[in-house]
Amino acid sequence: MAGTATDLQTLKDLATRIRIHSVESTTLAGSGHPTTSSSIADILSVLFFRTMRYKVSAPRDPSSDRFVLSKGHAAPALYGAWVENGAVPASDLKKLRQLGCDLEGHPTPRLNFIDVGTGSLGQGLAVAAGMAYLGKYIEEASYRVYCLIGDGESAEGSIWESVNFASHYGLDNLVLILDANRLGQTQPTMVGHQIDIYKRRLEAFDFNTIPVDGHDIGALVQAFDAAASVKGRPTAIIAKTYKGRDFPDIEDKENWHGKPLGGETEKILKHLKGLIRNQGKLKFNIPPPLSEVAPVTISNVRLSSPPNYKQGQVMATRAAYGNALVKLAESNPRVVALDGDMSNSTFSEAMKKYGPKNFIECFIAEQNLVGVAMGISCRDRTIAFVSTFAAFFTRAFDQIRMAAISQSNINICGSHCGVSIGEDGPSQMALEDLAMFRSIPGSTVFYPSDVVAVERAVELAANTKGITFIRTARAPTAVVYPNDQVFEVGKALVPISTNKDQALIIAAGITLHESLIAAKDLAKAGIHVRVLDPFTIKPIDKQGIINNAHQAGNRILVVEDHYPEGGIGEAVLSALAEERNIIVKHVAIPRVPRSGRPADLLNYYKIDAKNIVNHVDELLKK
Amino acid sequence: MAGTATDLQTLKDLATRIRIHSVESTTLAGSGHPTTSSSIADILSVLFFRTMRYKVSAPRDPSSDRFVLSKGHAAPALYGAWVENGAVPASDLKKLRQLGCDLEGHPTPRLNFIDVGTGSLGQGLAVAAGMAYLGKYIEEASYRVYCLIGDGESAEGSIWESVNFASHYGLDNLVLILDANRLGQTQPTMVGHQIDIYKRRLEAFDFNTIPVDGHDIGALVQAFDAAASVKGRPTAIIAKTYKGRDFPDIEDKENWHGKPLGGETEKILKHLKGLIRNQGKLKFNIPPPLSEVAPVTISNVRLSSPPNYKQGQVMATRAAYGNALVKLAESNPRVVALDGDMSNSTFSEAMKKYGPKNFIECFIAEQNLVGVAMGISCRDRTIAFVSTFAAFFTRAFDQIRMAAISQSNINICGSHCGVSIGEDGPSQMALEDLAMFRSIPGSTVFYPSDVVAVERAVELAANTKGITFIRTARAPTAVVYPNDQVFEVGKALVPISTNKDQALIIAAGITLHESLIAAKDLAKAGIHVRVLDPFTIKPIDKQGIINNAHQAGNRILVVEDHYPEGGIGEAVLSALAEERNIIVKHVAIPRVPRSGRPADLLNYYKIDAKNIVNHVDELLKK
Repeated sequence: MAGTATDLQTLKDLATRIRIHSVESTTLAGSGHPTTSSSIADILSVLFFRTMRYKVSAPRDPSSDRFVLSKGHAAPALYGAWVENGAVPASDLKKLRQLGCDLEGHPTPRLNFIDVGTGSLGQGLAVAAGMAYLGKYIEEASYRVYCLIGDGESAEGSIWESVNFASHYGLDNLVLILDANRLGQTQPTMVGHQIDIYKRRLEAFDFNTIPVDGHDIGALVQAFDAAASVKGRPTAIIAKTYKGRDFPDIEDKENWHGKPLGGETEKILKHLKGLIRNQGKLKFNIPPPLSEVAPVTISNVRLSSPPNYKQGQVMATRAAYGNALVKLAESNPRVVALDGDMSNSTFSEAMKKYGPKNFIECFIAEQNLVGVAMGISCRDRTIAFVSTFAAFFTRAFDQIRMAAISQSNINICGSHCGVSIGEDGPSQMALEDLAMFRSIPGSTVFYPSDVVAVERAVELAANTKGITFIRTARAPTAVVYPNDQVFEVGKALVPISTNKDQALIIAAGITLHESLIAAKDLAKAGIHVRVLDPFTIKPIDKQGIINNAHQAGNRILVVEDHYPEGGIGEAVLSALAEERNIIVKHVAIPRVPRSGRPADLLNYYKIDAKNIVNHVDELLKK
Repeated sequence: MAGTATDLQTLKDLATRIRIHSVESTTLAGSGHPTTSSSIADILSVLFFRTMRYKVSAPRDPSSDRFVLSKGHAAPALYGAWVENGAVPASDLKKLRQLGCDLEGHPTPRLNFIDVGTGSLGQGLAVAAGMAYLGKYIEEASYRVYCLIGDGESAEGSIWESVNFASHYGLDNLVLILDANRLGQTQPTMVGHQIDIYKRRLEAFDFNTIPVDGHDIGALVQAFDAAASVKGRPTAIIAKTYKGRDFPDIEDKENWHGKPLGGETEKILKHLKGLIRNQGKLKFNIPPPLSEVAPVTISNVRLSSPPNYKQGQVMATRAAYGNALVKLAESNPRVVALDGDMSNSTFSEAMKKYGPKNFIECFIAEQNLVGVAMGISCRDRTIAFVSTFAAFFTRAFDQIRMAAISQSNINICGSHCGVSIGEDGPSQMALEDLAMFRSIPGSTVFYPSDVVAVERAVELAANTKGITFIRTARAPTAVVYPNDQVFEVGKALVPISTNKDQALIIAAGITLHESLIAAKDLAKAGIHVRVLDPFTIKPIDKQGIINNAHQAGNRILVVEDHYPEGGIGEAVLSALAEERNIIVKHVAIPRVPRSGRPADLLNYYKIDAKNIVNHVDELLKK
């Protein structure tokens, strides 16, 4: 498969053809970013036709070099490269941005040559760093990872989280290319063409840096070759480029962001076509991977042994998370936990102790944390479990949103939910996490109420596609379920019921435990209530809720340690939207809570057993 | 008021007393972070008893220097400083972290000496940068701003967004103090005590840097004095400190994060008390502000002129946002718009053109964008309006969450909502923004459906406490309301109704317009439906919805350009939770959408007029 490296003139012509594709396709679409595409055309030409080792016929081959276009709005250039290498028919470009065409406005993995969706800026580098970490430390493979970011997006803090991570772990298989084209959407970037500023910043974070003329094909070839020989640290190629390069009267001009060339198109295309030296089919050589990585299987992963607790034993749900992860890792070495310096609180530390390939410390940088998890899980190479306090995943909402668009399979565990954490106060309490994770398309949201349920939630999550979330709690609570209890996604459990129930309480976590106490107290007073534990809040067991409500007086009390919006209450109400006759009383945390002892707070916010008794009394009057 | 500066030995003793308070209060509380408090005690002593100019009797005086404790878990030390300066009774510390005591686990503005809540790391510097920007550019005042961050939290990208912002704007009235105590929660930080690395990084971002022994009172005094004389750029004081300083056998040791000293308490207290030289009341001098800033009024701000559109005129709602801001600014010069390099898409550019004091360009860094808005709005000095694409506010969810805890009054406008933006694809479409903003406690969520409604939403937002959100759209739509239409928070409008309505359609934005068309088409077929525009999704007009549903067959169709969870549908269902007999059919975007022409996408996801007609037909069969 070895051959002569693609010559420089051919690379120049390929770059020009990428520009032509970008201009033609965006003009036809009537929208898009041709000038942004043009500034990176030479970089893409060198990467895709000389530097990167990959298989055109198998774009997601696990042995190949990876490329992440963090500045996703330059998609037309990327599509143009894949047209030129033969993977995409040129005719597809005529349908750019149209419904039904996978060549979308910004790249998504609907295309088989895209690993992750981009378009929300500053996110690609974390994914690329995850891929590089996987290659260097977990797979010990030869593939390299290239990530192209814009200069405007380098203002995103997430970029610097990832820069820090990449240098800390000495990811010498990672190359960051910074496309310094000087212009943002509305005005010049903060740094403009002061390449030396980028160089100083990246060197301060211990990157090897190579400033280069981003339109000099020969210089780019040399830069990538030089990067390949650097050991122990990542390289940043800082490319000085011009937005709208080779578009006369548009190059380096403001007010051309995100606009097709319209009436200028014909003139520009004529100019571009005049730059091409080799007419007809271009001869290039794309080098194959240096070595093949072994196939891995990450499906059908099971706990190595069933849960082993005693009913009535008191233990925080978060404490079972680490146990479950280790049991999964015992079944499959590709289970990897990631944490943000919280592993002794989330209990992912069990994996840290289990094995060096099974844990990645991401320090206090939640955006990068989620991005790295996306990176290691690409191409089905690992099963990633990410943990920190549930509240702090709000920091990565945009990354999680993009993970759904990216068809990522990542599992997220957020500990320390709700006011029941107590004294640390509102900044540490997750009270909007269910709302956030429910809003993620295709997500599965687990809210296990005891340690047995946690172990099964972790196991189910490992085998569930898309984004999964597991909500765990700080407070110790009793084991409710026997070790052989069967749990299913979308299947509620009913720990307390009689044939004369007057109301149905739906609760999870701490409020399930309070509800169980309340139910027993009510029963003593002759009032029978059924208690339903939804187990998954999304999907929620619609039919189970309806059936149980019908058998319990068509009255439901939902009580949750979450803000009123988007949590269990609204999930239940959505399930009942088209039902007549069932009424729902919904009790949640109505405002920013205070610090205090957990029991004091549960009482103050009216979600403890005593208050639940009162809520039931009120509900029965309606 | 001038006096002799507090002497060094007194400052040392005050630092020790801060340590004593931290140890005693956390041991009594049974939780908290005494070792983290100890590493900053000397810094706080110098700041609060020698460097900072402020009024103990008026902690939120607008002329005073500001202090932001970004590493909020060191709260006990900060509380100790305010005990020592006399503002807080020492006895309050005995109730640290208890329900009802405002000395919470992490600082919140329930205390009058706290401007913003902290505790989610990496956020304080953005707020401080906003305060400094306000002081330097808008108020042209003498006050200075001090922000103390931890070394662990410097891994948060948000810190580097703010560092970049502060240096870009040359905020020489801002001093960042980095408490490099070497230890994170679970292990040493990435950088440890390599102070030179922090120095290089911060200098690369054009900060003046002063490395200092963070336990050398004299050196700290000199460092702060030196910082005060630097012009044109911010200063970072990089303090090498030890976690648990002056706690024998604990200082600089791992595994002491976030733990009271328990059985070690007595020994440590004895040691600390032995360090104090001046027994009894300490004599210190807190310097007053150099100059007073003028009072400002930011209440009761009105549009300078009413909306001026024509019914039927076609115009995107986002386009009215800039008009409304300028009209507010004409009424009150303290209205300030902030944007993240999107001002020509969000239309905040109108403010950029209006006046240099009325617009802050924050570039592509949404976390810092929101933090700066919080900073400029502290102490009621400005009315801040922040804008970018609604989808990109997910990047700042944690900041927005903390803004609610901070009792911030900031107004957020997110443009480009929903699939109706079209070709740019899912990464740019806000489909979870209503879920996010509804989950913020105390928030007000506007979803204006035409340009008249936008202007009034902006005006109402300016006068509404807490976090407000205004959702605007890219697509041009018809003006629905007359210029004199009255809009109120929590009050729905009913643009179409008859006395024989069979169903109620609830919709907003693009789907309101499609619903109006559908209603007219249905009327032609003899089916009368009422259309309700909620105007605010939170609070939602509960009684209005119930009344109109009763008058329209107890059948509701909610159709929205948002994911199913947490948006209009669930807001409506929550309003109806305790109602019997009303059924709701809910149509939303069920999965990650594609790129395409807006009309194609509205049809594909079944939220256009034609599909709404079908949904009504189905609803009427139920």
